[in-house]
Amino acid sequence: MSSRLKDVAALAGVSTRTVSNVVSGTGAVAEETRARVQSALDELGYRPNVAARNLRAGRTGLIGLAIPELHSPYFGELAGMIVEAAQQRSWTVVIDQTFGDREAERRLLEGTGGRLVDGLIISPWALGPEELTGRSRDVPVVLLGEQQAHGVADRVAVDNVLAADEATTHLLSTGRRRIAAIGVQPHLRNGTARQRLSGYRQALRRAGLRPEPALERAVTTLHRKHGAEAMSALLEGDERPDAVFAFSDELALGALHVAVERGVRVPEDLAVVGFDGIEDGRYANPALSTVVPDKRQIAERALQCLADRIYSPASTVPPLDIVIPHRLDIRASSGRTG
Amino acid sequence: MSSRLKDVAALAGVSTRTVSNVVSGTGAVAEETRARVQSALDELGYRPNVAARNLRAGRTGLIGLAIPELHSPYFGELAGMIVEAAQQRSWTVVIDQTFGDREAERRLLEGTGGRLVDGLIISPWALGPEELTGRSRDVPVVLLGEQQAHGVADRVAVDNVLAADEATTHLLSTGRRRIAAIGVQPHLRNGTARQRLSGYRQALRRAGLRPEPALERAVTTLHRKHGAEAMSALLEGDERPDAVFAFSDELALGALHVAVERGVRVPEDLAVVGFDGIEDGRYANPALSTVVPDKRQIAERALQCLADRIYSPASTVPPLDIVIPHRLDIRASSGRTG
Repeated sequence: MSSRLKDVAALAGVSTRTVSNVVSGTGAVAEETRARVQSALDELGYRPNVAARNLRAGRTGLIGLAIPELHSPYFGELAGMIVEAAQQRSWTVVIDQTFGDREAERRLLEGTGGRLVDGLIISPWALGPEELTGRSRDVPVVLLGEQQAHGVADRVAVDNVLAADEATTHLLSTGRRRIAAIGVQPHLRNGTARQRLSGYRQALRRAGLRPEPALERAVTTLHRKHGAEAMSALLEGDERPDAVFAFSDELALGALHVAVERGVRVPEDLAVVGFDGIEDGRYANPALSTVVPDKRQIAERALQCLADRIYSPASTVPPLDIVIPHRLDIRASSGRTG
Repeated sequence: MSSRLKDVAALAGVSTRTVSNVVSGTGAVAEETRARVQSALDELGYRPNVAARNLRAGRTGLIGLAIPELHSPYFGELAGMIVEAAQQRSWTVVIDQTFGDREAERRLLEGTGGRLVDGLIISPWALGPEELTGRSRDVPVVLLGEQQAHGVADRVAVDNVLAADEATTHLLSTGRRRIAAIGVQPHLRNGTARQRLSGYRQALRRAGLRPEPALERAVTTLHRKHGAEAMSALLEGDERPDAVFAFSDELALGALHVAVERGVRVPEDLAVVGFDGIEDGRYANPALSTVVPDKRQIAERALQCLADRIYSPASTVPPLDIVIPHRLDIRASSGRTG
C-alpha cells in the first residue's frame, strides 16, 4: 500500500504525509493542494484499505446520521450531501430517522445497542440542552441545528435570527406592513422556530411595527399540510396579511397553494418567503423566495468536525460552534411589484 | 429472554413461536395477529437482543439500500419508508447513493470491501440484465424497479406499461389529442422509461392515434430542470401539445412551472400528468395529477423478501417478481374542463 501512496505523492508533487492527510480527512491541507492530490488519487485509482486500517484502530468505518425524517425535502437534500461527502472520506453512513421523538433521540445519543458507529451527526428536535449535556456516549457527536449546545459537542448551524430578520426586512422593503409568520412551534425544545420568530419580530420592531399575536401562527409540523391550514386561517381572519414569512419552504409551499387556489394574487396581494432553499421552491408557481442555507457546507463542516474528533481522540480543542453562511433568494413570490 | 417472549405470547394470546415470527419478520402471520403481537410487544417494552442473535448467526443486523439519489423526493420518501420498516424488524439501514453510476452499482452488487450487510435492496439504473445475472454477491439481493431480473433475484416493481397506459387514457378521455411524453431515456439500461413510453404509445394506438416522434421528448435526468427544458422546446414547436404525460413528478413539475410562467392555462390549454405520487405535486399550482405507486408496500414487500432470504438461506423458493399496486390521482392539472 505504501508504494501506491508514494505513486500518488509523486504524481501530485507532495509528500506521502500530505496524501495521507487528504485521504483520512485530517490535518490542514490547502484547498489547491487537496484538489491536486484528489486528482492524482482519481487518476491512479487509489483505494486505501480503509476496512483494515479501521479494524486495527478499533473503528468500524461507519458514521451515524440521525435526522427527524428522510422524506422532508430539506433533510433529503442534506442527507444526500452528507452521504456523498462521507463516501469521499471512505465512510459509510448509517441513517436513523427519529421523527423528532424524544426517546429515539436519547437512545441514539446514549448509544445503546453496542458501538456500531465511529461518530454521530444528529439533528435533535425533542431533546433540550440538559439532555444533550448529560449524554454518556463515548463516540464523537456533531449537532446540526439551533439547540443550545453549551459546549458539549461541535455544532453546525446557520444564524437563524439574522436570516429571519433579513427575510422579514426584504418583505418590509417591498412595502408590506401586515406580515404573518407561519411556523411557530411552542411544543419543540429545538430552538429553530424560536430563533426565526425572534428575527422576524426584531425586523418588525426596527421598522416601527408591533408584532401581532394574530399574525404569528403555530404549526404542529413543518409540512405543507400545516402551512396550508395556517394560510386558510389567516385568509379567513378579519384583516388579511399582505405577506407571509414561513419558517420552512414546505410550510411556504402549502401556504402558496391555498392562496393561489383561492384566487389571491401572489405577489401583488400577498408576498411569500420561505426558508430552506429546497429545489421544489424554484419550480413552484410562482417561484418561491427563500432563505438558502449553504447545505453543501453544512455537510462538509459536519464531516470535518467528525474526522477531527475521530482521528484525534486526544485533542483538547473545545467544542466548536460553526456558523454556516446563508443567502436570500428573491423570486417571483415576493418580487417587487409596480 | 425466553421468559420475556412468553410474557408477550401470554398477553397476545398466541404461541411463543408466533411472537418469534413477528419479531424476526419471518413466517406467515395473519395481519390481525401480527397487530395484536405488536401491541403486546409495545406494551411490555420487549426488545429482542438482536445484536447477540445476529452475532451467533454470523449476521451484522445491517441491510444496505442503494438508490440513485437521496435528494430526489421519490427516493427520499421511499428511503424513509424502508428505514422505518427496517427499524420495525430491528434492522439498521446503510444507505449508498449510486447516482446511476455503472461502477458504483456493480461494486455494490459484487460486494467488494467485506461483507458489511446481511442483505441489499438496490434500484439499479445503469446495469443491464447481463450484469445483474453475472453478480457474484453472496448475500440476498432485492431489486427495485423495472429492469429485467431474469430470475436472478427477487424484484419489486409497479406495472409501468399499465400505469402509463392508464395515465394516457385519462388524458384522452378529457378530449386531448396531441399528448406529449416527457422522459424518454435512451441512455439508461433501466427499463422504466422504455416501459412508460410503451404504455403511452399503446394507449394512443388504441384511440386510433399515431405516436409522433416530435411529441416524445428525451431527457438526461428525471429532475425538474429537464422537465422545464423539454416543455420549453414543446411550446416553441410549430404545433403545441394539448397535454403532457411526464415520466416523473419532478419532470411534470418542471413542465408545469414553464407552462404557467408563459401564460399557458393549465388544464384548459394544457393538461399535465406526472408519475410517482410525491408530496410536492399535491400542493403544486395547479395541483398535479399523478400515478401513485404504493410506496409503503414497495418498502414492506422488499423487506419481507430480504427477511425470507436472510432467515431461510436454504430456501428453494425461486426469485419472486412482485407487482405493486398503483392508482391514478386526478387533480386540477388534468381536471375535466368545460
